[in-house]
Amino acid sequence: MIVTFVHVWVKPDNINDFILASTENHQSSIEEAGNLRFDLLQDANDPAKFVIYEAYESDAAAAAHKETAHYNKWRATVADWMAKPRIGEKHIIIAPTEKSQW
Amino acid sequence: MIVTFVHVWVKPDNINDFILASTENHQSSIEEAGNLRFDLLQDANDPAKFVIYEAYESDAAAAAHKETAHYNKWRATVADWMAKPRIGEKHIIIAPTEKSQW
Repeated sequence: MIVTFVHVWVKPDNINDFILASTENHQSSIEEAGNLRFDLLQDANDPAKFVIYEAYESDAAAAAHKETAHYNKWRATVADWMAKPRIGEKHIIIAPTEKSQW
Repeated sequence: MIVTFVHVWVKPDNINDFILASTENHQSSIEEAGNLRFDLLQDANDPAKFVIYEAYESDAAAAAHKETAHYNKWRATVADWMAKPRIGEKHIIIAPTEKSQW
């Protein structure tokens, strides 16, 4: 299992657009076979800063996400709304260790 | 519902100690009535950097965590192992919106 934090900085005029497009992407992503979580979070102190908390059962499952139609639609849709490039931070899961707890 | 990322920088000699103490704290924290998640994560590129991903059903539930015996034991236990002060980042949850999905 692996967790990636995807940090996203959105242009202020596109915050609502980003929330709508990303909620749609969330709904499709949690249906992927290898997905464990796909939480969409907004920084409480900066409404233009978001984090997507992506947990997958393997590196292969995380890579497969980027081949899906919904990911590629989202990527193209949000491209012009980015204030700067996204940053992904990979993490090793210490706890919980049971897949059923994800 | 609210999510806080707690960023933790540990002295290199205390990484294993921190993992043991924090896994014990994880086990007790997920039993709290208002807790939704308490994921313990290690940066894939820096074994001395951790994130605790804490989701609570309310600000009150998050505050109550800091009154528990297990939190205060953990806090005292890890105090000398910190390389620098912890940073907490509060986040608003956009998705999933259903408590049952947490």
